[in-house]
Amino acid sequence: MNIGQPDIVTPDIGWNAIKEADMKVLEYSHSAGMESYRLKLVEFYTRYGIQLTHNDIIVTNGGSEALMFGMMACLDAGDEIIVPEPFYANYNGFAQSLGINIRPITSSIEDGFALPPIESFEALITPHTKAILICNPANPTGYLYSAAELEALGEMVKKYDLYLFSDEVYRDFCYDGRKHLSVLAIPGLEEHTIMFDSISKRYSACGARIGLMVTRNKAVLETAMKFAQARLSPSTLGQIMGEAFIDADMDYLDQVRIEYDKRRQLVLARLRAMEGVVAPTPNGAFYLLAQLPVDDTDNFCQWLLQSFQLDGETVMLAPGSGFYATLGFGKQEVRIAYVLNEVDLNKALDCLEEALKLYPGRTINNNQLTNHR
Amino acid sequence: MNIGQPDIVTPDIGWNAIKEADMKVLEYSHSAGMESYRLKLVEFYTRYGIQLTHNDIIVTNGGSEALMFGMMACLDAGDEIIVPEPFYANYNGFAQSLGINIRPITSSIEDGFALPPIESFEALITPHTKAILICNPANPTGYLYSAAELEALGEMVKKYDLYLFSDEVYRDFCYDGRKHLSVLAIPGLEEHTIMFDSISKRYSACGARIGLMVTRNKAVLETAMKFAQARLSPSTLGQIMGEAFIDADMDYLDQVRIEYDKRRQLVLARLRAMEGVVAPTPNGAFYLLAQLPVDDTDNFCQWLLQSFQLDGETVMLAPGSGFYATLGFGKQEVRIAYVLNEVDLNKALDCLEEALKLYPGRTINNNQLTNHR
Repeated sequence: MNIGQPDIVTPDIGWNAIKEADMKVLEYSHSAGMESYRLKLVEFYTRYGIQLTHNDIIVTNGGSEALMFGMMACLDAGDEIIVPEPFYANYNGFAQSLGINIRPITSSIEDGFALPPIESFEALITPHTKAILICNPANPTGYLYSAAELEALGEMVKKYDLYLFSDEVYRDFCYDGRKHLSVLAIPGLEEHTIMFDSISKRYSACGARIGLMVTRNKAVLETAMKFAQARLSPSTLGQIMGEAFIDADMDYLDQVRIEYDKRRQLVLARLRAMEGVVAPTPNGAFYLLAQLPVDDTDNFCQWLLQSFQLDGETVMLAPGSGFYATLGFGKQEVRIAYVLNEVDLNKALDCLEEALKLYPGRTINNNQLTNHR
Repeated sequence: MNIGQPDIVTPDIGWNAIKEADMKVLEYSHSAGMESYRLKLVEFYTRYGIQLTHNDIIVTNGGSEALMFGMMACLDAGDEIIVPEPFYANYNGFAQSLGINIRPITSSIEDGFALPPIESFEALITPHTKAILICNPANPTGYLYSAAELEALGEMVKKYDLYLFSDEVYRDFCYDGRKHLSVLAIPGLEEHTIMFDSISKRYSACGARIGLMVTRNKAVLETAMKFAQARLSPSTLGQIMGEAFIDADMDYLDQVRIEYDKRRQLVLARLRAMEGVVAPTPNGAFYLLAQLPVDDTDNFCQWLLQSFQLDGETVMLAPGSGFYATLGFGKQEVRIAYVLNEVDLNKALDCLEEALKLYPGRTINNNQLTNHR
């Protein structure tokens, strides 16, 4: 349960498109992606109430490259980007490789990892601050930002003339009837918002390496295109798949969401039945961040791998500390990715339950929220 | 003739591997690439006299990403890399995005673009110099470095403790019986050499976006792996193709080389029959850099597109200035990519011949080498 590799089947329509592609030469595509794919994406985004032209889109080698291009286009070395923590650990890697500094604002498990107050963002803004980065719904917390939260962020980025980066690769996985709001659908933010997307999670096609950077800010797009041209093009095969996915049975995503929702409820129910475990309800993505009654989840996760077995098996979890930029935070938390079928999930949770009883570093929490810092 | 997109057919064995891949979920691969592919690559490189283990290889999103990883792993912002010019223009883009400074050393058309004297490299070395970068055989000149030149570079990088970066994506295209020597095959340079490779040109699979970074330097590999992990993985589909290509009919590359060689000879003969044109013989790749009797090839190439037609067609060439870091150099040169069949090549060269007669900015060169600076 430690990585975000879904077990969901990739839609056949994608495989078939590759098999039926009658090409002799596997050529570079346009550096921004095949025009036919970008035109199809325009149609795709209208389903979410987002009006674009195909010139607002750059197809990338995975969501990772999209994020890199966004940072490279909007920030210089030494600039700062404010990110609510816990956050996807690879944001650190992208920023560090570009000499960009991430300034974290801690969200709290007590609030279910809601957006911290706008004042706490404002307190961090310096002349070097160029952007706010959110992941919505969030990896690793599963938190889904409300319209009010997004609008408050929107007001702030307008006031301070910042970019609002929104990583929306989990957009289709929202539960309890909640609806996702894209930053691109908020009027008046056209010059500020850059949205990052990917087909990896939506269609369980992580290995296609197809991501998207989308913005209506022409200057940002133009700069990003220079980086896109330098690396020539994204994968042509992945784009052929991506284009075909858009015509996939509209039921596919509904079915996937229903499947993840079942797993989410199973994991939540099982975790909450374990003594000392605290798990806020995630409304999106396929992750949750739980607090465990242990001294340090880095030690606990290592102990699970090295010293624990239940019927010859163990469970892998991602320690919370990896998702915090602030040193020492998240030590009682683990991220759980519910990307396994229910049978395997139950086995993994049996392991966790038994392990928590035997772990020598167990603490006494009694389902009380401790200060997770 | 202005871009390096071959018209050669991609081997069927690659297409078939994709069609026959019986996968349900298109998963991420290992961040360094599929182990089965890297093991197969070890076998592949023994054909060139290069002994490796699969742990010396990182599979990347195209040769572009391989070069980025090499720069990111070996240089910090503010560091310098010495590159013989003319060079592949995208090296500039990669370096600039990382804050790395390229220091050019001009090779000269009079010498057929041979390696400049080692003393001219030594004169540029500062405490910030971390690496030398060559492309062998070279884009845009087609120059193939000799064993003596490579060994001299090897002595220098040892003496000054520098990295030797070698972009060898055109390795299989060498003519006139010349043999390519990889920097990885030179003994004693194990800690210094980083080789960049790609399946794009070798198998005419540019759209697969599969490149390779290869080095025996463990520290460099370890650092590069951090960047590889941050972007998760290269394209799984591209890797499946790449692995299959290694089992392609051994004749395939011979046939491709014979085809390019025919084109090379055709282009050279045609160019040399044009008054005032100078074209050194390239021994590798599928490019050559020619000197034209014109005032400025940027103007000439634009005039070709806007103001010239022969039987309703024109010809596109890459102006030489784009391949020089030194301002004002290459103004009489153009790069010609002979990636068209002989019929189309002849048509394009008919255009060029006629255009040179009509171009208002023609100068009188009479096949004399002018100082190309």
